[in-house]
Amino acid sequence: MSDPAEGLRAFQKQIERVYLERDRARGWERTFVWFAEEVGELARALHRTDEENLKEEFADVAAWLVTLASIRGIDLGEAAAKYTDGCPRCHGTPCRCPEK
Amino acid sequence: MSDPAEGLRAFQKQIERVYLERDRARGWERTFVWFAEEVGELARALHRTDEENLKEEFADVAAWLVTLASIRGIDLGEAAAKYTDGCPRCHGTPCRCPEK
Repeated sequence: MSDPAEGLRAFQKQIERVYLERDRARGWERTFVWFAEEVGELARALHRTDEENLKEEFADVAAWLVTLASIRGIDLGEAAAKYTDGCPRCHGTPCRCPEK
Repeated sequence: MSDPAEGLRAFQKQIERVYLERDRARGWERTFVWFAEEVGELARALHRTDEENLKEEFADVAAWLVTLASIRGIDLGEAAAKYTDGCPRCHGTPCRCPEK
């Protein structure tokens, strides 16, 4: 099993190879709009029973999220390190925070 | 560099260890509301200049997205494999699809 934070970085790097040049030229504002559209498609897929489509929409939201992070210069591997040792608030695995 | 799809799965597994039991008990509908709240926090962070906060919000959206996938039984590693060989539409790295 690879390191979770490093794993997220690997996914981000792959999406960068495929999309970053174009996404960066578009800018983060319009890229956020694409991301939001995909979130809407995910919401619709969650209401349905087409598992293949649901899987696709989760992947698409993940891809738009990481490309948005790349445009803004955020290393998601570094960002995700906050979850490496359990819940960042209570430090538990599983989380033992009181439900908000 | 780890495999991008396997990397995303590793991140998902870590979030499952920390949060899945509680998130599953809450159900996907209310978990989606938490996810949407985090997307709003990300939008706010994108407008600001606090890089540390921006990093946190990207990580939080990623965490809520993957826990939502787990509740619905979606393996994000499998889902993300659609991006492993470049753009799923034009198969290019980089993507050469005409901009929509």
